[in-house]
Amino acid sequence: MAERPLEHVVELAGGVGGARLAHGIQAHLGAGLTVVVNTGDDLERHGLLVCPDHDTVLYTLAGLDNRALGWGLEGETFANAAMLAGYGEETWFRLGDRDLATHIVRTRRVREGQRLTDVARHLGASLGVAARILPMTENAVRTKIRTDDGWLDFQTYFVRLHQAPEVRELRYDGLAEATATPEVEAALAAAEAIVVAPSNPFLSLAPILGVAGIRAGIDAARARGVPVAAISGIIGGRAVKGPADRILVSLGHEASALGVARIHAPWIDLFVIDTVDAALAPAIRELGLDVLVADTLMDTDEARARVAGTVLEAVTALRR
Amino acid sequence: MAERPLEHVVELAGGVGGARLAHGIQAHLGAGLTVVVNTGDDLERHGLLVCPDHDTVLYTLAGLDNRALGWGLEGETFANAAMLAGYGEETWFRLGDRDLATHIVRTRRVREGQRLTDVARHLGASLGVAARILPMTENAVRTKIRTDDGWLDFQTYFVRLHQAPEVRELRYDGLAEATATPEVEAALAAAEAIVVAPSNPFLSLAPILGVAGIRAGIDAARARGVPVAAISGIIGGRAVKGPADRILVSLGHEASALGVARIHAPWIDLFVIDTVDAALAPAIRELGLDVLVADTLMDTDEARARVAGTVLEAVTALRR
Repeated sequence: MAERPLEHVVELAGGVGGARLAHGIQAHLGAGLTVVVNTGDDLERHGLLVCPDHDTVLYTLAGLDNRALGWGLEGETFANAAMLAGYGEETWFRLGDRDLATHIVRTRRVREGQRLTDVARHLGASLGVAARILPMTENAVRTKIRTDDGWLDFQTYFVRLHQAPEVRELRYDGLAEATATPEVEAALAAAEAIVVAPSNPFLSLAPILGVAGIRAGIDAARARGVPVAAISGIIGGRAVKGPADRILVSLGHEASALGVARIHAPWIDLFVIDTVDAALAPAIRELGLDVLVADTLMDTDEARARVAGTVLEAVTALRR
Repeated sequence: MAERPLEHVVELAGGVGGARLAHGIQAHLGAGLTVVVNTGDDLERHGLLVCPDHDTVLYTLAGLDNRALGWGLEGETFANAAMLAGYGEETWFRLGDRDLATHIVRTRRVREGQRLTDVARHLGASLGVAARILPMTENAVRTKIRTDDGWLDFQTYFVRLHQAPEVRELRYDGLAEATATPEVEAALAAAEAIVVAPSNPFLSLAPILGVAGIRAGIDAARARGVPVAAISGIIGGRAVKGPADRILVSLGHEASALGVARIHAPWIDLFVIDTVDAALAPAIRELGLDVLVADTLMDTDEARARVAGTVLEAVTALRR
């Protein structure tokens, strides 16, 4: 094949799965990768602005992600959290001593009037990240979860209650007023391919797609012949990480790669499923999508780069 | 002697010397001690409100002071500071991982509208401190130091430049507008004795005495027969800690216990000097002061309690 190599790829990402895929793509494209991250699970803790999805992507792209915990920084310590607890602070959302520096720097800069986008650039540059990480919007968006006990903040559901309650309904406070930043719009306009991470369709991707300008930017890119590929976060009917499988069922969908494909079908071209789900390929093709069957687990650096390479190769072939 | 035991003592304190004396007094009086602390060396670091003198007193009274470093918390770690440095933050004013919790909690509460006095009460209660620690005022006071290179922030002079520059002049921004809190006024009104820590006369005590209502409260107490005792922070012509000896000379005073006594003479009754300075006692008595000669070094818990006990006994005898 003699296709032009991809130079500009945009990834839409939530937390861990998005971060791992981004790490793999960065290994191929370096600064050619722009990651648009969900900010719907951002929160204030102890008066500090915490952006969990952004920071997971940041630390992973910097090679500082904690592989053992699956979140936070490698070699993290928690002396501060113990002291905060002594002051009666709730510490179920544990902030590590090093991680805290990110929130302190971010909070000060935002209070001084800097845009979250500019703060993200500073953080990424400081940690030597080649790719660009863009918050989906400058507007505050806060995902809320309705359970049988009423509406919960996202992290109350996700971290404090360990995603145990059944999800009955979702809403995204502030999303109706949120607009894409000029940087996100420019990235989509320059994209040669768009890759959608194996992130939770409702908790991570829906808020990104709901930001005014992002879905329009994706549609405009497709109209130019730019392929959009999404990777299933459901393998063998189960979420690789997190509660996506259960939420799919709760909200009336099928907990399978096919169920996810049906949700994304209107705005993507290629759906990537794991080899264990190969039997679902015909049904997904019937949705009008191309299907790539591949090993999609990204449990090592090598697997991240391999999965990313496979997806990049497939979208390159789809470019018009 | 059959004097009534002291129940309410107010101490005026700067940092380390004030904290050690307070620890000694607390050993005798527990909740009967109220420490009025200097806030002139408070500062913002990384967007957080830091109150060094208050926190030194807090940690020392809680038994958590770091004896090896002479500042900060026992067993402190600095993972956060290393990460902050990675983000390009100036970290010459190093905040430990546990110490940082104090500033985070304080900053959030103050931003939410709480008074510094109420925050101090929460911090003290959380760490099990028996004595009461009162910021001298709710108004922002910031001590500035003029050196041959111009005016410096207090901590730039004190920490960053290790007190190396000659001090030419001092000013206390905000002090002219600062008023004593109702808590400080009530403590002075209820005091049966007032003890002035061996703190720096210019950097620690002058701002406290400059707060409207504090000097008047001390004078009113003396008029009621309440004795005021001050302890020399200069022993054998040298400051026990810090630059007081050099500042005394720079500002035209004598670097000796006698030089300090002359500064305090107008508003105190008893001056406590170290045994090595016993020869200065007659000259100090000529200033109209009672003199107590005692071992005043507070390098151990036992020494703190002994020095405090000696001073409390002397002021008890002076009560009218």
